[in-house]
Amino acid sequence: MSESFGRVAIIGVGLIGGSLACALRAQGAAEHVVGCGRDRGNLERAVELGVIDAWTHDPAEAVRGADLVVVAVTLGATADILARIAPALAPQAIITDVGSAKRCVLEAARAQLPPTHYARFVAGHPIAGAEQSGVEAAKADLYVRHRVILTPVANTDREALATVRRLWECVGADVLDMDADLHDEVLAATSHLPHLLAYALVDCLLGLDSPVDVFDFAAGGFRDFTRIASSSPTMWRDIAIQNRRALLAVCTRFEATLATLRRAVEAGDAQALETAFARAKRARDDFVRRRTTR
Amino acid sequence: MSESFGRVAIIGVGLIGGSLACALRAQGAAEHVVGCGRDRGNLERAVELGVIDAWTHDPAEAVRGADLVVVAVTLGATADILARIAPALAPQAIITDVGSAKRCVLEAARAQLPPTHYARFVAGHPIAGAEQSGVEAAKADLYVRHRVILTPVANTDREALATVRRLWECVGADVLDMDADLHDEVLAATSHLPHLLAYALVDCLLGLDSPVDVFDFAAGGFRDFTRIASSSPTMWRDIAIQNRRALLAVCTRFEATLATLRRAVEAGDAQALETAFARAKRARDDFVRRRTTR
Repeated sequence: MSESFGRVAIIGVGLIGGSLACALRAQGAAEHVVGCGRDRGNLERAVELGVIDAWTHDPAEAVRGADLVVVAVTLGATADILARIAPALAPQAIITDVGSAKRCVLEAARAQLPPTHYARFVAGHPIAGAEQSGVEAAKADLYVRHRVILTPVANTDREALATVRRLWECVGADVLDMDADLHDEVLAATSHLPHLLAYALVDCLLGLDSPVDVFDFAAGGFRDFTRIASSSPTMWRDIAIQNRRALLAVCTRFEATLATLRRAVEAGDAQALETAFARAKRARDDFVRRRTTR
Repeated sequence: MSESFGRVAIIGVGLIGGSLACALRAQGAAEHVVGCGRDRGNLERAVELGVIDAWTHDPAEAVRGADLVVVAVTLGATADILARIAPALAPQAIITDVGSAKRCVLEAARAQLPPTHYARFVAGHPIAGAEQSGVEAAKADLYVRHRVILTPVANTDREALATVRRLWECVGADVLDMDADLHDEVLAATSHLPHLLAYALVDCLLGLDSPVDVFDFAAGGFRDFTRIASSSPTMWRDIAIQNRRALLAVCTRFEATLATLRRAVEAGDAQALETAFARAKRARDDFVRRRTTR
């Protein structure tokens, strides 16, 4: 018998929240799942698909009596949601989130939740997703063998931390703890900066004054490089701003690396380019190999 | 009955040259195919796989008596190959290439070939490929529904141009003519710059001073964004240098676009970011839609 997480409230029934709900139900690990969101069509569809049992537009109503509250909205909406649910939380409620940056979420939680609930707030980030969004894209196996990073702080309740760890393990994820600032730096480097670069490349090409439509001549490499530029603009707007300190720091390093390669191109320095490209290729091939085998 | 291109010499039996040879043989469109390269194991494997009939290490020997010569080596080696084949070309020989930049190839051809053969040189670029290389990766359908850009000049022989057009049409490609400088600008934007950025991102991450291995936390978005950083370092070193004028021009524009986005992040300008991200997403989604339907 797997554990039950009791009454679960999912605030934000999109790809991430919806997939977690799907997976919990597939495991029989939730007694009752209430979904909360703004889009009535999406919520009704979530009930039809069996992802949630009931829905409401009101976050406070959604969390009433819930044992576990999962905040799965865009980062920019997190503070507001926490403020709205704070007065309605049951004493036993454990709260977690799925945001792609964690320092900003912890600050919002400390500001918006009473201390007893802040101690039962476990910031988390499942490293999974897709450029699609909405409950239609949700799937029960989204988290299988994906990493989930939890960023507890000194006064995080150990029982709440253990429960949220079991929540993600229950849906197949590999869970680990990390310092929130380190999380934000690592994700800025491996996810947030690549998104900014992909958006920047497409936007740059849109601005070219060319007699042909350059996109007509783009091929598979361009398609894959820019896949993440098909991600949700509002979600990535929020991530860029909420994690701006770490994002700008790694962006500065990237600009310096690009400038170095650029100088090698200008100078026709074949050796320098080959050395850098070969080093990058080895690291990227190694990343793919490790990912395939773990 | 499909046309035969007679005796064909493929200089450089890698993914691109090997796939063309495979496709010509699959169509019964070549009487005899000689491969030329430096790696004996690769050439022997190409014969075993039935990709070529015979091989030699000597480009001059490879082209002797050939009706069609396809130069499929890295850009940096093209001028040398043209110099070596020039004295051995049959009067009727038509010569073409597959390089990813075209102005530099035309300059090399004009410098290395006698005027009669320069007129029969048709610069071409099949927009197809993969991060794999070598004849093992070759496949007969690599060019099906892919674009091939030919960049004839004023004195290019019309019959030679028509023959090279039919060559690519015969293996399933969509062929179009373009000015060489425009080709170089378009490919710098859609292919060469993305490669430089992908290499730069991986190299930037390698240089981070982090207590964890950041690559351990990279996910599917990173994998796709950096796929092209697994491409051949020597090939891309040559492309970056040979097409440096166009690459640096579009790189300058990219840096300006990135700087604009960066300023919006610094300023917390959610509206500016969302507008730019949404514009890029629309363009990228549209690109994918058009690519799928053509």
